[in-house]
Amino acid sequence: MMKYLLSLAALCGSLLGVSAQSRIETFTLESWVLGAPKTCSVYLPDGYDASQKNYPVLYLLHGASDDHTAWVERGQVRRIADAAFAEGVAQPMVIVMPDASGEGPNRTGRHMGYFDVEGWPYETFFFEEFMPAVERRYRIAGDKAHRAVAGLSMGGGGTVVYAMRHPELFGSACSLSGLLDTFPVPRKDDPAFQQSVTDNSPVRMLETFSEEAVAPLRTVRWRIDCGDDDFLYACNIRLYALMRERRIPLQYRMRDGGHTWHYWQTGLAQILTFISVGFGA
Amino acid sequence: MMKYLLSLAALCGSLLGVSAQSRIETFTLESWVLGAPKTCSVYLPDGYDASQKNYPVLYLLHGASDDHTAWVERGQVRRIADAAFAEGVAQPMVIVMPDASGEGPNRTGRHMGYFDVEGWPYETFFFEEFMPAVERRYRIAGDKAHRAVAGLSMGGGGTVVYAMRHPELFGSACSLSGLLDTFPVPRKDDPAFQQSVTDNSPVRMLETFSEEAVAPLRTVRWRIDCGDDDFLYACNIRLYALMRERRIPLQYRMRDGGHTWHYWQTGLAQILTFISVGFGA
Amino acid sequence: MMKYLLSLAALCGSLLGVSAQSRIETFTLESWVLGAPKTCSVYLPDGYDASQKNYPVLYLLHGASDDHTAWVERGQVRRIADAAFAEGVAQPMVIVMPDASGEGPNRTGRHMGYFDVEGWPYETFFFEEFMPAVERRYRIAGDKAHRAVAGLSMGGGGTVVYAMRHPELFGSACSLSGLLDTFPVPRKDDPAFQQSVTDNSPVRMLETFSEEAVAPLRTVRWRIDCGDDDFLYACNIRLYALMRERRIPLQYRMRDGGHTWHYWQTGLAQILTFISVGFGA
Amino acid sequence: MMKYLLSLAALCGSLLGVSAQSRIETFTLESWVLGAPKTCSVYLPDGYDASQKNYPVLYLLHGASDDHTAWVERGQVRRIADAAFAEGVAQPMVIVMPDASGEGPNRTGRHMGYFDVEGWPYETFFFEEFMPAVERRYRIAGDKAHRAVAGLSMGGGGTVVYAMRHPELFGSACSLSGLLDTFPVPRKDDPAFQQSVTDNSPVRMLETFSEEAVAPLRTVRWRIDCGDDDFLYACNIRLYALMRERRIPLQYRMRDGGHTWHYWQTGLAQILTFISVGFGA
Repeated sequence: MMKYLLSLAALCGSLLGVSAQSRIETFTLESWVLGAPKTCSVYLPDGYDASQKNYPVLYLLHGASDDHTAWVERGQVRRIADAAFAEGVAQPMVIVMPDASGEGPNRTGRHMGYFDVEGWPYETFFFEEFMPAVERRYRIAGDKAHRAVAGLSMGGGGTVVYAMRHPELFGSACSLSGLLDTFPVPRKDDPAFQQSVTDNSPVRMLETFSEEAVAPLRTVRWRIDCGDDDFLYACNIRLYALMRERRIPLQYRMRDGGHTWHYWQTGLAQILTFISVGFGA
Repeated sequence: MMKYLLSLAALCGSLLGVSAQSRIETFTLESWVLGAPKTCSVYLPDGYDASQKNYPVLYLLHGASDDHTAWVERGQVRRIADAAFAEGVAQPMVIVMPDASGEGPNRTGRHMGYFDVEGWPYETFFFEEFMPAVERRYRIAGDKAHRAVAGLSMGGGGTVVYAMRHPELFGSACSLSGLLDTFPVPRKDDPAFQQSVTDNSPVRMLETFSEEAVAPLRTVRWRIDCGDDDFLYACNIRLYALMRERRIPLQYRMRDGGHTWHYWQTGLAQILTFISVGFGA
Repeated sequence: MMKYLLSLAALCGSLLGVSAQSRIETFTLESWVLGAPKTCSVYLPDGYDASQKNYPVLYLLHGASDDHTAWVERGQVRRIADAAFAEGVAQPMVIVMPDASGEGPNRTGRHMGYFDVEGWPYETFFFEEFMPAVERRYRIAGDKAHRAVAGLSMGGGGTVVYAMRHPELFGSACSLSGLLDTFPVPRKDDPAFQQSVTDNSPVRMLETFSEEAVAPLRTVRWRIDCGDDDFLYACNIRLYALMRERRIPLQYRMRDGGHTWHYWQTGLAQILTFISVGFGA
Repeated sequence: MMKYLLSLAALCGSLLGVSAQSRIETFTLESWVLGAPKTCSVYLPDGYDASQKNYPVLYLLHGASDDHTAWVERGQVRRIADAAFAEGVAQPMVIVMPDASGEGPNRTGRHMGYFDVEGWPYETFFFEEFMPAVERRYRIAGDKAHRAVAGLSMGGGGTVVYAMRHPELFGSACSLSGLLDTFPVPRKDDPAFQQSVTDNSPVRMLETFSEEAVAPLRTVRWRIDCGDDDFLYACNIRLYALMRERRIPLQYRMRDGGHTWHYWQTGLAQILTFISVGFGA
């Protein structure tokens, strides 16, 4: 019966052209920087194949203990992006979801994270090898105005640091529930990862940046979003206060919620609108 | 690592008391009206067990080719209700999800639907046996003001008809993408179901109701919601126009979207607020 | 004291660069088409003067018994546009508000409306004289993708008709509470205006358009919005059904409300996002 | 013509019963506590006169350099409350807007504020005389669950302090852009007012409260809302962090905007829903 209803719906959909033919594919790069293969998920919007145009791109980063499948499976990126484009409140774009998982159990441990560590120059890989490869492989506009980065938790930290180090590359940068400073509660396990988070803390960076270093950050459209129940609240409001003090224009949102996929799914929808408006700027 | 982050989050959550301890259980009734067992899913909000209070109740109906697990699994009722209660925009309530599936493949076919048909008096079962049993088993307030009904597609049709036949029982009635009249495109299979939909069309009911029959309908808080891409749009706007003409106050919403779980999940969140405001009336 | 707080706020605002220096000016054109002067209001976004760039443009039409000051004074266009641009959910644009008022009491009567009538070729004036003059006077991008039209009530009717007759000129067209067909209740006064509404009914146009005439309409991003309590509901859902039947993709929204400035103010904010996404397409 | 359209709209409205007959009246109390008359504005919802029921009540506080007319005239409380009740997302309630203006120019200066100062025991007046008088004069439910307090800027400070000192009186407390601690930039004028703000700082109160004093605060539904561009951001996120640390459940929202009526109008709509859900608890 639902088959019946759904076949009717599909029929009407195809008549109306409303059924989104977006798709998600994976792409594996044999990295010479890392000396290992790395796979990413790529969302291609409805109409990508038929079109000749170059698309804006969003790099969408996962959190700790996850990989390039996280936004696809638990984040429901396809459903959310399809809906935003169909509603006309976001522009069709390519969404690239890289893999920064570790090699240990639950995708944690050695080599987890977005930063360069001893023997694993992930950030170098990202900018020197991965991003160029992706932007050759897909029809990507490739300018700052049409490139955005966003991520959740550990990927929110990656988002902010990447855009602080490369404000010339990203038109917009959007952090969700970001891990933006040293761990709130230090632990014994995984000291290397914790150290890399401290070494790449955007809070510490902003505390010490000269005015000269701050100036280019004002060319990025920043959006920081962290729920009022999130356990990472302190580093998020600390970064907010620092950005206010350093006169870096930003959007900050505190909505209801904790460190959950519900928060990130609803946040993603808003991010898609925010970065889309920037694509046209 | 995410274990690490999540255990931290859980720790903070338990310290703050923010982690919702809601749960979903099933309850099977051996129905003498139907001569068969019928199972429902029941959402019990955080605090239900510790509390002594009686709760408002929402009967939440699934669509064709589905059963009492639909709202739980694909509708994500628990995540959505937990979030709405935590945000303070809906009152904690018990949500009862009955089973009106058929016995054929894909839960369609014989005995599907919310109405009485030859040999299967489902509507009689619902009001005479099921609702009383549920309201004895759980701590339910049990008055009109604290009882609501909602549903999607076939269950939207059930919602409207149940509240039209029993305005004395429901304070609010909310249809999502409702099947509210004869099928838009007749088919050969399943003629009995199609006939029952026609026989219980709320559009036809309103077209013929006397002013005396219409008057009690004004005591229900109506909310009809159907997406602008839905293939069932015609019967929904027809019912809207009839309710306007018959001067039955209602909320009507047309948002972006089709006959999809994305529409129903976002719709459910809004319904929880709408019916909660009614609970206090 | 509030002076105190506000001077503090202004100080912080200027330090942060958040105070929007948008402005509204008027521009009077001595029309040779109409043989009369016509004045419009023009919203120029923050940064317009300092910038060299060309801007997208929105033509924003008022309703019956009003003029080019309506959106400025009662519509609060400046506050709403400033907020949307500051939030990053709409692109800075020029907003042109023309005058289609009548010469009688309360700006009704003779010469009211957006269409050509005997002795008053307003529509001709709009396309042949007014739009070119505005787009010479201000830095306007001037292509279809960066031009939108929107309006309320009588101006919603103007919006739909203008974009149906000139789909090559408008990327997006957004009607709020549009007067889209013959008056629901005929009256004795003002027969000329009522006749012009009937003669330029988009409902009638769509009922009779050939498939060839319909095809170009699919290149416009349509958004029709009419409140569930609006007395003009019937012509709005009639146009919606016709556009579905004729397979013209559109956004339709029915939100809560009647024929009120509250509805139009909240609707305008959504329209600014919708058309901004189109500007980048 | 608009008269024409509006008379049609009014006709349809009255047929449908959708035109809200709310009203705002003023009430002057000759205060023996203050030795002076004090006037408040009171919003009475549609149906108040015809009904026999007791209503929930919201005390809605204005900011510095304003008085009891601020929410009525610039805050548009009537339009916003009417719309929320009509939409079914807030419960009809009585809204009481007191006067805490000063006697100097621009309603600043001597006697401005919500706290007891030398020779002007405003807080004593509020709880001992004003609130009892209002709740005798109008049909007010009068219990904690059905009483809320909210306010903006100086009135946000009043809101938080009143609910911290009287958690037994208020079910919900909602601050908008609250002045919650010592002035960010000290000034020479108005030292008495600035001292009273420091003396009644909720940030300082929470920093020093014992666990015993904190416990009752957990019975209030707190909602703190301050825009990301507001110059009072620092004291707001400081209070948020303290409430998290002291494990007082709260809703915190940071939306886009500064210290503006646009922020407060949109914030009020959300507050009406939040407190309405609490009325039913």
